[in-house]
Amino acid sequence: MEVGPRWNKVAPGIWSRVFGAPETFTARSALKAAPRWEALGEIPDAPFPFDPAAASGEVRGGRTVLRFPLRPNTPVFGLGLQFLRLDQRGRTRYLRVNSDPVQDTGETHAPVPFYVGGDGHAVLIDTARIVTIHVASVVRRKEAVPTPDRTTDPAWQETPPGSWVEAVLAAPGAEVFVFGGPTVRDAVRRYNLFSGGGFLPPRWSLGFWHRTPTRYSAAEVEAEAAEYRRRGFPCDVIGLEPGWHTAAYPCSYEWSRERFPDPAGFVHRLAEAGFTVNLWEHAWVSPKAEVHGPLAPLSGSHTVWGGLAPDYTLPEARKILENQHERAHLAAGVAGYKLDECDGSELTSGSWMFPAHATFPSGLDGEQMRQVYGLILQQLTAGLFRRRDRRTFGLVRASGAGAAPLPYALYTDLYDHRQYVRALCNAGFAGLLFAAEVRGASSPEEWVRRVQVASLSPLAQLDAWSSGTKPWTFPEVETAVRRALELRVRLVPYLYTAFARYQRDGTPPVRPMALEEDPGEARLADDQYMLGQDLLVAPLFAGQTERKVLLPPGNWYDFETGELLEGGGAAVLARPLESIPLLVREGAIVPLMPPLPHTPRAGETVALEVRHYGPRPGRYRLYDDDGETLAFEHGAFRWIDLAVDISQDGVRRGRVEMGPDVGGLVYDPVQWVFLG
Amino acid sequence: MEVGPRWNKVAPGIWSRVFGAPETFTARSALKAAPRWEALGEIPDAPFPFDPAAASGEVRGGRTVLRFPLRPNTPVFGLGLQFLRLDQRGRTRYLRVNSDPVQDTGETHAPVPFYVGGDGHAVLIDTARIVTIHVASVVRRKEAVPTPDRTTDPAWQETPPGSWVEAVLAAPGAEVFVFGGPTVRDAVRRYNLFSGGGFLPPRWSLGFWHRTPTRYSAAEVEAEAAEYRRRGFPCDVIGLEPGWHTAAYPCSYEWSRERFPDPAGFVHRLAEAGFTVNLWEHAWVSPKAEVHGPLAPLSGSHTVWGGLAPDYTLPEARKILENQHERAHLAAGVAGYKLDECDGSELTSGSWMFPAHATFPSGLDGEQMRQVYGLILQQLTAGLFRRRDRRTFGLVRASGAGAAPLPYALYTDLYDHRQYVRALCNAGFAGLLFAAEVRGASSPEEWVRRVQVASLSPLAQLDAWSSGTKPWTFPEVETAVRRALELRVRLVPYLYTAFARYQRDGTPPVRPMALEEDPGEARLADDQYMLGQDLLVAPLFAGQTERKVLLPPGNWYDFETGELLEGGGAAVLARPLESIPLLVREGAIVPLMPPLPHTPRAGETVALEVRHYGPRPGRYRLYDDDGETLAFEHGAFRWIDLAVDISQDGVRRGRVEMGPDVGGLVYDPVQWVFLG
Repeated sequence: MEVGPRWNKVAPGIWSRVFGAPETFTARSALKAAPRWEALGEIPDAPFPFDPAAASGEVRGGRTVLRFPLRPNTPVFGLGLQFLRLDQRGRTRYLRVNSDPVQDTGETHAPVPFYVGGDGHAVLIDTARIVTIHVASVVRRKEAVPTPDRTTDPAWQETPPGSWVEAVLAAPGAEVFVFGGPTVRDAVRRYNLFSGGGFLPPRWSLGFWHRTPTRYSAAEVEAEAAEYRRRGFPCDVIGLEPGWHTAAYPCSYEWSRERFPDPAGFVHRLAEAGFTVNLWEHAWVSPKAEVHGPLAPLSGSHTVWGGLAPDYTLPEARKILENQHERAHLAAGVAGYKLDECDGSELTSGSWMFPAHATFPSGLDGEQMRQVYGLILQQLTAGLFRRRDRRTFGLVRASGAGAAPLPYALYTDLYDHRQYVRALCNAGFAGLLFAAEVRGASSPEEWVRRVQVASLSPLAQLDAWSSGTKPWTFPEVETAVRRALELRVRLVPYLYTAFARYQRDGTPPVRPMALEEDPGEARLADDQYMLGQDLLVAPLFAGQTERKVLLPPGNWYDFETGELLEGGGAAVLARPLESIPLLVREGAIVPLMPPLPHTPRAGETVALEVRHYGPRPGRYRLYDDDGETLAFEHGAFRWIDLAVDISQDGVRRGRVEMGPDVGGLVYDPVQWVFLG
Repeated sequence: MEVGPRWNKVAPGIWSRVFGAPETFTARSALKAAPRWEALGEIPDAPFPFDPAAASGEVRGGRTVLRFPLRPNTPVFGLGLQFLRLDQRGRTRYLRVNSDPVQDTGETHAPVPFYVGGDGHAVLIDTARIVTIHVASVVRRKEAVPTPDRTTDPAWQETPPGSWVEAVLAAPGAEVFVFGGPTVRDAVRRYNLFSGGGFLPPRWSLGFWHRTPTRYSAAEVEAEAAEYRRRGFPCDVIGLEPGWHTAAYPCSYEWSRERFPDPAGFVHRLAEAGFTVNLWEHAWVSPKAEVHGPLAPLSGSHTVWGGLAPDYTLPEARKILENQHERAHLAAGVAGYKLDECDGSELTSGSWMFPAHATFPSGLDGEQMRQVYGLILQQLTAGLFRRRDRRTFGLVRASGAGAAPLPYALYTDLYDHRQYVRALCNAGFAGLLFAAEVRGASSPEEWVRRVQVASLSPLAQLDAWSSGTKPWTFPEVETAVRRALELRVRLVPYLYTAFARYQRDGTPPVRPMALEEDPGEARLADDQYMLGQDLLVAPLFAGQTERKVLLPPGNWYDFETGELLEGGGAAVLARPLESIPLLVREGAIVPLMPPLPHTPRAGETVALEVRHYGPRPGRYRLYDDDGETLAFEHGAFRWIDLAVDISQDGVRRGRVEMGPDVGGLVYDPVQWVFLG
């Protein structure tokens, strides 16, 4: 079918259309999104994925109503970091940034007005406004739907089956982007690359993270870090919680000299021991902060916990915070941030956010500002490190559309383990990462199961800010916990490569089964997910000794034992507590490093164990660079080619082509392990 | 202080002010609110309750932002049928009509943009729009609030203490009404009378109600009614559920001749046995309904369960439904309605409501229509009975501002017993009534406790539509249940009088302790409430054998035993399962009738037991009229004066002045019982 005159093709398989007169400030404009045109050009073109004339938009009473067709009986994925369902079809979603996603409204830390049809297309509404999106959950009079009698007909449904998306926002228009397939993965990759591609984290950030209790002094933190080394648990990052500030909630951003008399010395000593330091902060500026005076005239009408809500869309406001952070944090060697409380709450955690009707010096209102605050803070703080030619990877409590290039993972105060796994899945549809961090547990068994999932997340963290837990908190499961942390570290080469792909071709490093090229029956699974190129994680939850896993077609192998599982349907996995069910696609090659206390730095020599699974040849490209700087953006990286050939009599042989040294790691020796 | 020029005094202690350019369609305009000017004139004037110049309104980007001061450290009540808290201070409330009030957002079946300051004033925002109201839950920069350090200072609070109400609605203006005190009760009475005063229900509607299972035929319903008589359980009303329609969800409004071959005969036979018939319906019109064709062009853009959403703000649409209901229901003798599903859902009960962006022929949008649908349906159906010179009392799932004159009680699908009692309290702040109906129970004990509260509610109903329960479902507690139902019937003269006061002076018949003239420490109680003039209900919940009750100053007496309890603080009440703690104010007079199978009709002779409590004289005016028609509006009623004098030696003597006969009941004999 011909694409109508008003849909503009902006890249292969990507179209845009302006409905009404959009506001100039949008999520994309806030981030100054820079599409990865070249990478986009490498995905084959696709036809416009639905009847372009069927889409419509109407502006009425200051509201824009958009309408797009859906194919019958297909699931609809996406809409951000959703905790409560994978398939959003049949639901009305209120896509407001909110820290209270405990009821299934669509509100979450990172709602994204971007949905993915199960038939392989996606739609982004580019706005800084709250979008209410009816995903086949409203029905117009002209649509014929069945009306069975509830009294007598069991076919009656609470939600009648609609076949349109209707989306509404309080703006006089919106620009809409459509992403073609043919697969769900293609549509998502196009979206991620159109956002600017995924980010490449520093290698150290893929190790294990530990956040210390909020009142800890420098000495206590250093003692806790030393305890990791003494006990031989790997750890790369120490995160400080509010107590490092002179005042917090709202924040001063200045070191409490009482608890941290020598910040630079503290950071330096930890660095010597192989740790980087991540600082907690939130955006609301204490009257006790040095930056309060200069930021006051550049802030919103309303306070948060009595602190300023600065208007960081203004360059002069950004400058003030950048200078202070540069001086007080980066100069001392701080490697990243945890950006808390930028989502807001009116409910479970009290009521403390500025209201939607707040005003800001830039002319934005509170609705817009709340929707983009997390995005803007990520961009602002990421820029600090970029300016120093350093990468970062941090944590953030709010995000939105186009976040793939932002070096942050989301987290939450919610703590339902199954919801965590579902969020890991859903994040992958929306250019987001979710750190399924561990805080505490009600039993040793739950502790292990949570640590296992955290270890197989984009960012593996124990957040002991209030719990004071350590990996060894439950001595009876210390071995199982150690095993999960060590697995994390062994996977660093593999995970680092997965991020490199995210950065280059838009494939999420952690993603739902629906993003497999052919997920088969696993398409709707929300309790298992893919990690990197070929690993399938099927977590067990407290109380389980076995679980059902849905396998895409083809053979799969147990990661540790190489046991064969036939794909293309359901399999039952029984696993002891210390073993997380991790399956590998047939023919896959998985590179592992030793479980070092912390990840290696540029130039270090590291042994490589390369596993290959099953009787089919395989190819894998292992990514390598200096692990810390932006030199990779200018070509300073290499792909190490790993291949397994199989002789006619079935003997497997591994080959390595290291490529030119680029100041990265020295992988030596390389040991091949053939499983399955 | 002088009231500023823009606040207009509209009655003693009532002021209005227009901010911006309000929409012409509002909750008050929809109901054509007719203030009870004469009764309003009987409440002493009061000063404007806050600095009138402090109030402000601003219209920006299609939104109106209103701002009113609050006195420090006073609770803020109201905002409609709230289930989850009594004091709304410190919370942001999203006042949308919604059947899913399971999270504490402010959404409920009947949100009302009307709040009551604990210092004795109230504010109504008259709109058909959703109001988001920040009740001291946002803080502007110019307000100084403390900023304790969370790390070290236990004074830190999740919600900083604000001192303003900020309310927002998506309209270019709003009219605001302020109600003066000096007491909370005065402010609420002014509001109710300004809405048109409470309604007077037919006397029979104060008896017990039973709703039969949805698939029951006429014969099965009649058998169930007969079973009440056979077992000697009182019952006045039989309610039919969806199965009486030829098609339901959406509705046809026509009798299923399969299950109800002779509707008029069915209603007539039940009437002969002392029952009236109430019909379940909802507003969404089935394609199988006779009225579907004529209503189609008068309906909204979107369907609900595939049914039309008629625009009943249009007289021609009302006429179509009125004529059909008159012909099919009222002509057959039907006495009232249960108006279901007019609130909408996107969450727990599926997603089935028309969206906020729906359009209607009158020009209203879906936001406005959803907010007022319940109000309009109540008014429409109440009018059917008024035209026949008959009163009605029914049930409704959605309501709003100014609902006091509408003869309906709210109900819900939620079923938390403590929330029910809280809702009974909160309804009294907002011109609403809540039928804390009983449906089922997980234990005989819970069954009794629920029946007790239902029996002391504005409308006492067992809703067995899906549960099939009867009062005798748990045989081991049949006596306790019978006792609660009989108490209900015995209280009818007292309750009827309470409603007459509601109608005449705006005092809610069921109300929170804060509406006492001097509630003392009981002001914030949300698990006890006042019933009629002088009864205090302190329900026990399953698992309790005793409870704390907070008593206003003065002496109180156990309703049955006359045992004295000193007021002005907390008391512990221990009660066996069959006894609901019902306390009586000192000096109170409570008239009771015998526990008849159904309430008496005009002209019948009924014995009266008049109880008096304690050693102080008392006066009580018992209301009487024909119990069914509107003749009382033209003077056909009487007040029966009951008085107790106490001689110098402490002997109590009751006096009765019956007043002229008005075709009501004949109370004879009158027996005095002196307790306490």
